Amino acid sequence: MQTAAHVLREADPLPQPYLLFLGDVVEPGYAKTAFGLRDWARERCVGEFACEGAKVSAGLPAMTPAQARMSGAKAMVIGVANPGGRIPASWVPQLVQALEAGLDLIGGMHARLSGIEPLRNAALVLGRRLIDVRDPPAAIAVASGRKRSGKRLLTVGTDCALGKKYTALTLARELRARGIDADFRASGQTGILIAGEGMPLDAVVVDFAAGAAETLSPDADPAHWDVIEGQGSLFHPAYAGVSMALLHGSQPDVVVVCHQPGRTHVLGYPGFAMPSLEDTIELTLRLGARTNPAIRCAGISLNTGELDADAAQRVIEDTGSRLGLPVADPIRGGDALSRLVDACLA
Amino acid sequence: MQTAAHVLREADPLPQPYLLFLGDVVEPGYAKTAFGLRDWARERCVGEFACEGAKVSAGLPAMTPAQARMSGAKAMVIGVANPGGRIPASWVPQLVQALEAGLDLIGGMHARLSGIEPLRNAALVLGRRLIDVRDPPAAIAVASGRKRSGKRLLTVGTDCALGKKYTALTLARELRARGIDADFRASGQTGILIAGEGMPLDAVVVDFAAGAAETLSPDADPAHWDVIEGQGSLFHPAYAGVSMALLHGSQPDVVVVCHQPGRTHVLGYPGFAMPSLEDTIELTLRLGARTNPAIRCAGISLNTGELDADAAQRVIEDTGSRLGLPVADPIRGGDALSRLVDACLA
Repeated sequence: MQTAAHVLREADPLPQPYLLFLGDVVEPGYAKTAFGLRDWARERCVGEFACEGAKVSAGLPAMTPAQARMSGAKAMVIGVANPGGRIPASWVPQLVQALEAGLDLIGGMHARLSGIEPLRNAALVLGRRLIDVRDPPAAIAVASGRKRSGKRLLTVGTDCALGKKYTALTLARELRARGIDADFRASGQTGILIAGEGMPLDAVVVDFAAGAAETLSPDADPAHWDVIEGQGSLFHPAYAGVSMALLHGSQPDVVVVCHQPGRTHVLGYPGFAMPSLEDTIELTLRLGARTNPAIRCAGISLNTGELDADAAQRVIEDTGSRLGLPVADPIRGGDALSRLVDACLA
Repeated sequence: MQTAAHVLREADPLPQPYLLFLGDVVEPGYAKTAFGLRDWARERCVGEFACEGAKVSAGLPAMTPAQARMSGAKAMVIGVANPGGRIPASWVPQLVQALEAGLDLIGGMHARLSGIEPLRNAALVLGRRLIDVRDPPAAIAVASGRKRSGKRLLTVGTDCALGKKYTALTLARELRARGIDADFRASGQTGILIAGEGMPLDAVVVDFAAGAAETLSPDADPAHWDVIEGQGSLFHPAYAGVSMALLHGSQPDVVVVCHQPGRTHVLGYPGFAMPSLEDTIELTLRLGARTNPAIRCAGISLNTGELDADAAQRVIEDTGSRLGLPVADPIRGGDALSRLVDACLA
């Protein structure tokens, strides 16, 4: 049986297009993996499939696994991110149905597909693959520190879960829209599902974490850009080691700092105040210079989703004049985003 | 079959005392694990055992596994750290002999004891344990950032392999000699063998690395000191993530910075100049303050093993006056070491 480890090691992308599986989800918040795929990989999603009683749709054509297979789907992706990352027993019949229809299964949850016996048996009998994108490659080298060719941009954050992936996806799209050869490089499970490949950085053994980041953005054409999805925050009491290893291994030429205005404390850590943008920029450049002395900060990505348009506009302008840097909310786009992209390329 | 994971999870120390196994080593440098155990855990080592043709001794009584068992030994420890961390097939008869004599086997090498079929079979049949101290516990929590009771000292380095473990062992010994309740907390395999317990930090998945460091030095009496073995360096292109996670999770009140005068580049990384002591102190305090705002640097531990006594004395004095901090070589000891210990307790 192959795993994501195999897929990544062999630089063999995930089987696509996908059928998105929505389980029995009734809360839209738990379907954000499916929504991310719909938003960023729509052309690689043929439809969606759910259990009886599910109340959430990603707005794609509903179809059975067999219909999806007929429409060209190669794999069914679990599009659910529920608390605890569990795969309930009630989903197993639908998952087996997908295997029987000729689809591989792809999961990015904490629970491993290969840990569920009926799936393992069905996959074995049917010759299908169970791919857990949280499984890192088996053989990752220790980081060498060797400077690689090509350009790199890394999104870094003042905290977790405030838009680093979305920002990287947007910047990669904007670069390509300008005719620049650019790849989004995924470092987390949803990003990997969207990109079809990547490195589940937070699942790597810490001694190899910087090496894993080096593997994620290999040597490239001098004019090529890798836009790398950041993880965690250098100020996070649990995940700063992840961010440090990703920064060193990515050797970014450019960083874009991601922040959510109004967030006062690290998510889930009420004892830890958010760092300022100024401190985040300064520390990131200082640490990043160890593996790329030419590192610079191009600007700021603000997640203003909780603000109305006027308030968002105000905080974007205020932050820009305070820091003297381009500031944009990638979801709001506009001229601000265009100036941020200009600054990345400057 | 139990593993180190079990041992650590259950807070059950390694089976002791030990018989030290020297394999077929002819180079003293490859026996440094055995030498470390002799130097730091002499009272828990009943003797040594080697293959025919071995040319290195740790100076302990030579005995067979059966004799060692009669003398109270509970386990045979592989005291060899050869290039590649391999367990050659030629050692297997002696390892099985130890299992047959009633000893558990403990290894800290890259190769896992449990990966060798004849050992696995013999252990199963005989009811003995194969303990790989590089295997981290199975269930480590994500770091909470919660401030723990008790005092903590962390040795940090300008690079790998320049005396962080030796410094921590020395400082723990000196604290105990002053009647202070202090524990050496091991974060690497040799340290774990010496302490009989600990956390193989570099083998932990990066998301849990700071959490593993929290586990390593739990809540303690307010007057108790944990003296924690550092890993890597915040300036290391491959291992800075390890050092960052260990710093955040350890929440040290005191750091002692370890350095080898004359080393110009990171070991094995000729493109990376060594950081200065000043930069190392400043960055360590800045980052460490995130989880313990009261962090301070008590002084410097210099590894002057490559210098003669006069040159060592000179560099110790020069460094001390330059930084305005106590500086000592723990191996040379003396008043300088005493002043460094004073500063740790100040």
